[in-house]
Amino acid sequence: MGERLVVVGGVAGGASAAAKAKRENPDLEVVVYERSGWVSYGACGLPYVLSGEIPRLEKLVARTPEEFRKQGVEIHAHHEVVDVDPELRTLTVFDHKEGRTFQDRYDHLVLATGARPLIPPIPGTEQRGVYTLRSMEDGEALLRALEGAKRAAILGAGYIGLEVAEAFRKRGLEVTLLELKDRPLPHWDGEVGSLLKEELERHGVEVWTGVRVKALRGQGRVEAVETSEGVVPVDLVLLATGIKPNTLLAQAMGVALGPTGAIATDEGMRTNLEGVYAAGDVAESFHRVLKRPYWLPLGDVANKQGRTAGSVIAGKEARFAGVVGTAIFKAFGLAVATTGLSLEAALEEGFQARKVFIQSRDGAHYYPGSQPLWVELVHEEGTGRLLGGAVVARGHGALRIDALAALLHRGGTVEDLLALDLAYAPPYSPVWDPLLIAAQQAR
Amino acid sequence: MGERLVVVGGVAGGASAAAKAKRENPDLEVVVYERSGWVSYGACGLPYVLSGEIPRLEKLVARTPEEFRKQGVEIHAHHEVVDVDPELRTLTVFDHKEGRTFQDRYDHLVLATGARPLIPPIPGTEQRGVYTLRSMEDGEALLRALEGAKRAAILGAGYIGLEVAEAFRKRGLEVTLLELKDRPLPHWDGEVGSLLKEELERHGVEVWTGVRVKALRGQGRVEAVETSEGVVPVDLVLLATGIKPNTLLAQAMGVALGPTGAIATDEGMRTNLEGVYAAGDVAESFHRVLKRPYWLPLGDVANKQGRTAGSVIAGKEARFAGVVGTAIFKAFGLAVATTGLSLEAALEEGFQARKVFIQSRDGAHYYPGSQPLWVELVHEEGTGRLLGGAVVARGHGALRIDALAALLHRGGTVEDLLALDLAYAPPYSPVWDPLLIAAQQAR
Repeated sequence: MGERLVVVGGVAGGASAAAKAKRENPDLEVVVYERSGWVSYGACGLPYVLSGEIPRLEKLVARTPEEFRKQGVEIHAHHEVVDVDPELRTLTVFDHKEGRTFQDRYDHLVLATGARPLIPPIPGTEQRGVYTLRSMEDGEALLRALEGAKRAAILGAGYIGLEVAEAFRKRGLEVTLLELKDRPLPHWDGEVGSLLKEELERHGVEVWTGVRVKALRGQGRVEAVETSEGVVPVDLVLLATGIKPNTLLAQAMGVALGPTGAIATDEGMRTNLEGVYAAGDVAESFHRVLKRPYWLPLGDVANKQGRTAGSVIAGKEARFAGVVGTAIFKAFGLAVATTGLSLEAALEEGFQARKVFIQSRDGAHYYPGSQPLWVELVHEEGTGRLLGGAVVARGHGALRIDALAALLHRGGTVEDLLALDLAYAPPYSPVWDPLLIAAQQAR
Repeated sequence: MGERLVVVGGVAGGASAAAKAKRENPDLEVVVYERSGWVSYGACGLPYVLSGEIPRLEKLVARTPEEFRKQGVEIHAHHEVVDVDPELRTLTVFDHKEGRTFQDRYDHLVLATGARPLIPPIPGTEQRGVYTLRSMEDGEALLRALEGAKRAAILGAGYIGLEVAEAFRKRGLEVTLLELKDRPLPHWDGEVGSLLKEELERHGVEVWTGVRVKALRGQGRVEAVETSEGVVPVDLVLLATGIKPNTLLAQAMGVALGPTGAIATDEGMRTNLEGVYAAGDVAESFHRVLKRPYWLPLGDVANKQGRTAGSVIAGKEARFAGVVGTAIFKAFGLAVATTGLSLEAALEEGFQARKVFIQSRDGAHYYPGSQPLWVELVHEEGTGRLLGGAVVARGHGALRIDALAALLHRGGTVEDLLALDLAYAPPYSPVWDPLLIAAQQAR
């Protein structure tokens, strides 16, 4: 009997681990158990299916079960791993389709059980017409719900809430976005939030900030959202108030969680248990600015972690170098990119931090059609160490955040940023790159 | 009498030096002598005036003489500095408008005399209808020449040749682009050249590569270009076969040139002569990949050098950290960004270099409207040290070159690139960033 890798969860981290391990070591038996009916898909694309821009959910699939099988990876959808014995290296699997339970064994196990929506503790969330958006199944349900719906409320103005607000508007719905904090994208600083609020309102989204949701009213089907500021009549509600890692199985089998509540791993994605790895939204990352574990449940991180786990299991040298917290998203005509810490987060972490926020453009002042672009830089007083930043663009150019991410990765300073030789031509940048203008002010 | 700064040349480096010095030390007397009729403008915008996208040359002006004067900087256009005595710190100035010569003195002198077109050694370049494109005056002349012109030939397929080819096409001209080497953008590797050639031809530019120009035929006005591959009838010719630094004045006064033939400076833009600085296209930069002086006559570099010189003269701490050779330009629908060394250049420099070249996209595979994007990485075998790279985009995303530039700045490796936490969301990147895909292949 050959060495056997079992992967629990087959969306991003798990699918990457399985594919990479098999590719690097074709002798390995690789089996993936996925609880849902879908494997290997880009959940980040769900809002664009809801908007109608992507015609079918199937488009989000990165690698079909057939492609996996052709590669020699066994894929079992609708299969839930319900128990693992890490001593015997056995597991118990429940086949939801057949309704049967069976045993399997492993030499290497990857936990890639993902995350689940955090349901806010308010009355009425159990009603019909109340949705979350994590999985393809969620997407299917929402697509059905959109038919005939006219008014939607979204609870939470993070990435998902913001992306779905846009999707719902594109479907022609009236949308009210409800956020407890005083701004959209509450984990970032207020200037970016203001730009977002303006953009959302310009596109007809009602943005209620600083509002507490008290209950979802209805008689089994949601009819209205009762808030501290008034009542919003609705046909459907999206709960986008955060997620948490699916650690039940990990905890039950004795896999240690880290300080964030997600699974703790080393750079090779190894957990505390011999032969057991974790990858994807269920696993922590090392944050290179904070210099401690951090939970960053994003698709690209999941893929990197999965690939690392797969390589290590296949006996290759590989390490996941951690994150600095880079993210980007689209909100109507705005591209919003952030990396590292906001000023608020930096101050909370005890840094002596300052920020600058500047407005520039994505092209030379004279270049026709050049658009506004904003840069925020957060840095440590005295040392000038960069702690974070944001680039918001109405046109192109938000990806210059990646240069900042590269600096954060190695503990770079404002002076290091000023020293960079960045790309300049009139269609793409002012002669002083917006990052450099911000760095000059931060100096 | 206060301390006096005289700046020779007022386009980019000179204008920056003057403005910065005055801002940092308002007690300084600051005088700028500019030989031409224009000061402080973005010469990089000239192709977009030729194309008609920018309606008037005046739009390229960054700061008007009135604005300088308001700041307390004296600006003298049409004034040529014809001699400098570095012992006495005096200079001789010729006023082209009044036809008079006078003396001035300085405590600090900035040489920002720029560069001039290199005229190829072929018969017939002295004729009417033959142009170069460096200055606003060149732009004025070409704008006049475009009226009624139907057929143009451009000699040289570097940045200027390529940008003007597009401009001429937008004006409705028939354009033949003639390049001695076997590809457009001859200083970079062939894959990028092939993409460019295809794009140029798709937009109706005749691209003749590997062609030697023998003569410009005509009877005082150019009528045809005689080449090794045949004769091209023309109404006008643009010479875009390179530039060289305007070092006459520097050499005459004993300012040392570097190995590149441009003025040698230290990090504070000081030349070998006490009190004499250089900035802009006449000055060298330190190349951080090659670890030696390099001539990179680009607008953003000129501005940085000028600003550094101005700060140092005003008594502030400042240094110009050098370049890695980052550049970007637009060729019709392609954005072409490069940084560091091409493979060809790296091999010539004696590096044990390799390259990878990959095709990816500027968004997730399922994201509607995502466009092809190509990445080249050049790196050193064994060490994995990054030496250079290119990003070519049909849509957005070419600015991810800046992340590569940030790595090159500090001698980063392929592994360093793989470790970066880059921005991902479906509208902006595949889940594996194209830079990371290239790095995986380079590994």
